[in-house]
Amino acid sequence: MASLIAPLNHSPHEDAEYLQKAVKGWGTDENSIITILGRRSCSQRQEIRKAYEQKFQEDLIQRIQSEISGDFERALSRWILEAADRNAVIANEAIKKGKDYQVIVEVASVNSPEQVLAMRRAYHNRYKHSLEEDVASQTSSHLRHLLVGLVSSYRYDGNEINESLAKSEADILHEAIKNKNGDMEEAIRILCTRSKTQLLATFNKYRELHGTSITKKLLNEASNDLEKALHTTIRCINDPMKYYEKVLRKAMLGMGTDEDDVTRVIVTRAEIDLKHIKDLYYNKNSSNLDDDVAKETSGDYLNFLLALLGKQDQ
Amino acid sequence: MASLIAPLNHSPHEDAEYLQKAVKGWGTDENSIITILGRRSCSQRQEIRKAYEQKFQEDLIQRIQSEISGDFERALSRWILEAADRNAVIANEAIKKGKDYQVIVEVASVNSPEQVLAMRRAYHNRYKHSLEEDVASQTSSHLRHLLVGLVSSYRYDGNEINESLAKSEADILHEAIKNKNGDMEEAIRILCTRSKTQLLATFNKYRELHGTSITKKLLNEASNDLEKALHTTIRCINDPMKYYEKVLRKAMLGMGTDEDDVTRVIVTRAEIDLKHIKDLYYNKNSSNLDDDVAKETSGDYLNFLLALLGKQDQ
Repeated sequence: MASLIAPLNHSPHEDAEYLQKAVKGWGTDENSIITILGRRSCSQRQEIRKAYEQKFQEDLIQRIQSEISGDFERALSRWILEAADRNAVIANEAIKKGKDYQVIVEVASVNSPEQVLAMRRAYHNRYKHSLEEDVASQTSSHLRHLLVGLVSSYRYDGNEINESLAKSEADILHEAIKNKNGDMEEAIRILCTRSKTQLLATFNKYRELHGTSITKKLLNEASNDLEKALHTTIRCINDPMKYYEKVLRKAMLGMGTDEDDVTRVIVTRAEIDLKHIKDLYYNKNSSNLDDDVAKETSGDYLNFLLALLGKQDQ
Repeated sequence: MASLIAPLNHSPHEDAEYLQKAVKGWGTDENSIITILGRRSCSQRQEIRKAYEQKFQEDLIQRIQSEISGDFERALSRWILEAADRNAVIANEAIKKGKDYQVIVEVASVNSPEQVLAMRRAYHNRYKHSLEEDVASQTSSHLRHLLVGLVSSYRYDGNEINESLAKSEADILHEAIKNKNGDMEEAIRILCTRSKTQLLATFNKYRELHGTSITKKLLNEASNDLEKALHTTIRCINDPMKYYEKVLRKAMLGMGTDEDDVTRVIVTRAEIDLKHIKDLYYNKNSSNLDDDVAKETSGDYLNFLLALLGKQDQ
């Protein structure tokens, strides 16, 4: 369930005018920007961006980027984009950062097969390369096969389950990933090509056979990039909300905050399942996600995140 | 340029009625079927199939399959389908045959990135699996990486060329494929992820550097499946019409005929570039493709192929 609260009716032209008032001249009225854009659905934001361009002959995102900066700007710019385009930007940033494989695995594994295709199409339009091309040219060996396989995947989306396959492939995953003694290429083939429904059956069969999940105690200090990417893949397919809850928890744990992770999860999930992720977060941490975000961030960035989190009393 | 001759105007309902007369009762009027379906464009055939289903509560293809058989039935059934669905059927047949990797490479490499996606979508609908899943589970090692990479590819479709990349990647292809002494995974990465425009620049650079094409004298009696698949990949990307001309030539060469190859090329290219392929065929063989098809095949199957080849005087 979404956390975002958006009105059923809005006027994109009025919104565009208010936004222009908020950015024009000296200074910027960040509160108005948050009040409007932090309370509009994806299709409403696209209408506003179009109306703004028509009325003022400039791109709303570019204007915002010239007026504000830092984490607030990054969150707001991402937020305005429609999902496929945003995922393409997120994937490209992860590639440019290098070694940020968790994010590549995440966008390729959490989204539906059609959403992954839409991201690849948006990636072409923006970067004049294919996503798999950029991922492949930065990686090698098993890690390349896993990441390229995931971003290129177009999984079957039906609900059929093959029980005997679930058993035999749970064994293959066990030998390769847990025992580190099997055919890793076969494990990668399974994770990159089987339908999510079939993979869930395989993960369930694994728990039945071994009394524990395949990801339990899989990582340690010495884990390499491949092991971490395999771990993320299985978690993203197995239970995306649980995965996101943990990303948020780790991003705000201890000293310092990983704003990129906080922004990414809140911006990408606010219209999908962020309300459930908040509930999960409360169950795991006995504290409200909103309160923890308020402790770890500040200013307009914080106010914007709280709007996306659906906080009413702003 | 297409070889097919189709009328600008036709009545799908009248066509459906004529077809029903041709298949009803004892015996079948093959000539009428050929006269109608062998002269209709893809969208016209879809309209006819729909009109037939509405009028007679049965699927035209199923009815045809129950009335006729052999190569004529196979060609006609393929022909009625729209392209993405037909490519899915062709790919699935190649997978079921096993070792028919040339056909898998062909459908993945000749078609545009969007057409490959459409084929994958059609494959889901028909077979309740993903195409890459079925290809991957039948293959291993480099051959798997090449074939899965090709069927999963969504290449960038723009015209930008990176000249220095063309040079460095021509060297990688040379070492791996021609010298059999380089990094095969890198060669596969290049062939599966680079845009076709970039790959053409790379193949041209190769010729400039080595005075010969990369596929020249690449295969011999001892060539394995991987080498054959690499050879087909490069030829399909480099010059699909030249590739198809050779498939037809080999299919009809010497004793016996490979009807599957003849059917596939004629049915899949009749609406695209079969006229050019015919011209190429004449230039290479000093004989007409139509005449050679007439020598190698017979009966209704022949008459149908000739209709698709655009022969007027039937």
